[in-house]
Amino acid sequence: MTSNKLLPALALAILSFTTLAADPVGNGPLRGTGDLGIAVERAKGSLQWLDTTKMTSLGRIEGLGDLSHASAVFSRDERYAYVFGRDGGLTKVDLLTGTIARRVMQSGNSIGGAISQDGRFIAAANYTPGGVKIFDSDSLDLVADIPTGSKVIGLEDIPGNRFGFSLWDKDEIWIADLSGDPKNPRLTKFTNIGHQPYDALVSPDGRWYVAGLYGEDGIAVLDTWNLEAGVKRALPDYGRGEEKLPVYKMPHLETWAMVGNLAFIPGVGHHEVVIVDTATWTQAGVIPVAGQPVFVMAQPDGRRLWVNFAFPNYDTVQVIDVPSQRVVHTMKPGVAVLHMEFAPRGEAVWLSVRDGNRLEVYDTASFRKLAELPADAPSGIFFTARAHRFGL
Amino acid sequence: MTSNKLLPALALAILSFTTLAADPVGNGPLRGTGDLGIAVERAKGSLQWLDTTKMTSLGRIEGLGDLSHASAVFSRDERYAYVFGRDGGLTKVDLLTGTIARRVMQSGNSIGGAISQDGRFIAAANYTPGGVKIFDSDSLDLVADIPTGSKVIGLEDIPGNRFGFSLWDKDEIWIADLSGDPKNPRLTKFTNIGHQPYDALVSPDGRWYVAGLYGEDGIAVLDTWNLEAGVKRALPDYGRGEEKLPVYKMPHLETWAMVGNLAFIPGVGHHEVVIVDTATWTQAGVIPVAGQPVFVMAQPDGRRLWVNFAFPNYDTVQVIDVPSQRVVHTMKPGVAVLHMEFAPRGEAVWLSVRDGNRLEVYDTASFRKLAELPADAPSGIFFTARAHRFGL
Repeated sequence: MTSNKLLPALALAILSFTTLAADPVGNGPLRGTGDLGIAVERAKGSLQWLDTTKMTSLGRIEGLGDLSHASAVFSRDERYAYVFGRDGGLTKVDLLTGTIARRVMQSGNSIGGAISQDGRFIAAANYTPGGVKIFDSDSLDLVADIPTGSKVIGLEDIPGNRFGFSLWDKDEIWIADLSGDPKNPRLTKFTNIGHQPYDALVSPDGRWYVAGLYGEDGIAVLDTWNLEAGVKRALPDYGRGEEKLPVYKMPHLETWAMVGNLAFIPGVGHHEVVIVDTATWTQAGVIPVAGQPVFVMAQPDGRRLWVNFAFPNYDTVQVIDVPSQRVVHTMKPGVAVLHMEFAPRGEAVWLSVRDGNRLEVYDTASFRKLAELPADAPSGIFFTARAHRFGL
Repeated sequence: MTSNKLLPALALAILSFTTLAADPVGNGPLRGTGDLGIAVERAKGSLQWLDTTKMTSLGRIEGLGDLSHASAVFSRDERYAYVFGRDGGLTKVDLLTGTIARRVMQSGNSIGGAISQDGRFIAAANYTPGGVKIFDSDSLDLVADIPTGSKVIGLEDIPGNRFGFSLWDKDEIWIADLSGDPKNPRLTKFTNIGHQPYDALVSPDGRWYVAGLYGEDGIAVLDTWNLEAGVKRALPDYGRGEEKLPVYKMPHLETWAMVGNLAFIPGVGHHEVVIVDTATWTQAGVIPVAGQPVFVMAQPDGRRLWVNFAFPNYDTVQVIDVPSQRVVHTMKPGVAVLHMEFAPRGEAVWLSVRDGNRLEVYDTASFRKLAELPADAPSGIFFTARAHRFGL
């Protein structure tokens, strides 16, 4: 185990950075921002501030409120993280100074958000009161308020400076188009898309908006290149099924693998990854795995999938080889692996091990552990390279 | 036309930045680096230093030698550009200070290069003497020298900290693997891959290395997930053909569009874009266009292709709608449009208009011109978001 050797190096790295600390008005030691990131410390309401090149922590950033189930997006220049807290707080964090640049309490209860294609607007999805709020990404001033009369989930950016989101209580998907007057987004509404959409994703090219359904089996698929065609239902057997299997955690749909026309998504309640033919939106097979998948994430090269699991298999990570559709590696980093994030070009993957109070970094080719970093009950890990991608 | 209005704003932007200039030891005004870029001024041996958010120039960076046919790659942190000059110069440019951080004359005549997946190594492809040199990306110290006895073209990064390149004089493709000992790259050589490979590309997922052939029709395709299968020949009718059509400029293969299993590549000598089914590597159709295509570049969302042309149609740009495979827009920015580069998430595209001595920026949705910037006979445009992608 390499952890004991790594810790002194980490402490030194933090110390040497502190001595070079930037002043709050914006001058300081210069550095690029393409290799930065954060890991959420949910209990403390703080972030670990990460350097993905040196695989070190640059320090802790505190004062972000309730970060249970928090997520983050990044500014177009990769300098700022926008963190959506469960308590409705929206915090703009400066990754060059390790400080909070701005913070607003934008609602009573938030579930996530997105940044527009051009980087000018932040959209937050809210439970209480239900709706979407649009903020200026520079000032965090409110630009537009879109009440929905429903909890909003699955808020994603879509090309054309649009946002897509789903209404849990109304079984609807809405598209808000900010390409005209951002203060008055043009809304397109799709009704009866399926019962209780609980999460959604956008394909890596930004074309397909797909919502998972909690209230029934199947998924809702919207082709954002052709809104006139409406929302289609697909995968009628995908979901909890007739037998109402015990589902320990509904899987996240945030990320999927696409190789040619195939997508790989977590099974619900089943110990399997589901293969979907996206040309026809039909099931093309399943891959047996060690538990109920939570995230099925593709390496940036699409060659392997990394899968974590719900209780009781939440100490385990499995790696699937895409060409052969087989599990090629199983490891048990500890209780509980909550999230995974790849280096921008995928040579390494970072895992959060919640009860182990640490982040672990692995070489994706050899599965060798490269680093361990202390972190307080870490959950989500987010790197600045997301700024340049759709739906992240 | 908006150019007259834009110029004063540009001058002001340059002035205000200059007053905040960084000191050379690395302190200065803080800024993110995810929205920076460069445009090559080939005659002057200089770069325009670009801000893609404000759509302005931050100044000119001089002293890079012979930049005819120059290209660039970016450091993992998106702070530095590595510019490969035709005279064999390799220049590391600091995009936070607008200065040259390091410069080495690494050969007599270079044609381009790449940066390794992990960002630690720069590889330069050389004509004179023929071979590849590997440099430390921090110091530019030589790490490895790979003589080939041939001009080297199509040097591309491949996942697994590998580089692929082609030997013009020997009809070979080599893979250099730096994942073990970088000072002694492990070489895999493929012979008789086709006559006179003249350019190559790597697919966006990093899997396929494809070389175009000058000496005969067809292309050479290598599946880097399965090197044992060797190089396959494909598209037997792709090339100059029996009739030896006049070819004003061999097309670049650097970038292609993939939608599902389709790729779109420039025809050789013909006024057409060729559609390729990458599941079988066979031709699936052609799209007629205004001239001999040079670059066929996909928007990051894959929905449209932007095409520029060889003489005598080099004043023209056409836009193809991917779903309908039809030209939907034609414009004539001026003589001669040499290169195009998309904003990271594709809301804008930048064009270099060589004889017009300007860069132009267009909204990709509306085709509205957003900005014009003066530049001295500009050619290649390169943005830092390339740091996070394969084969760019």
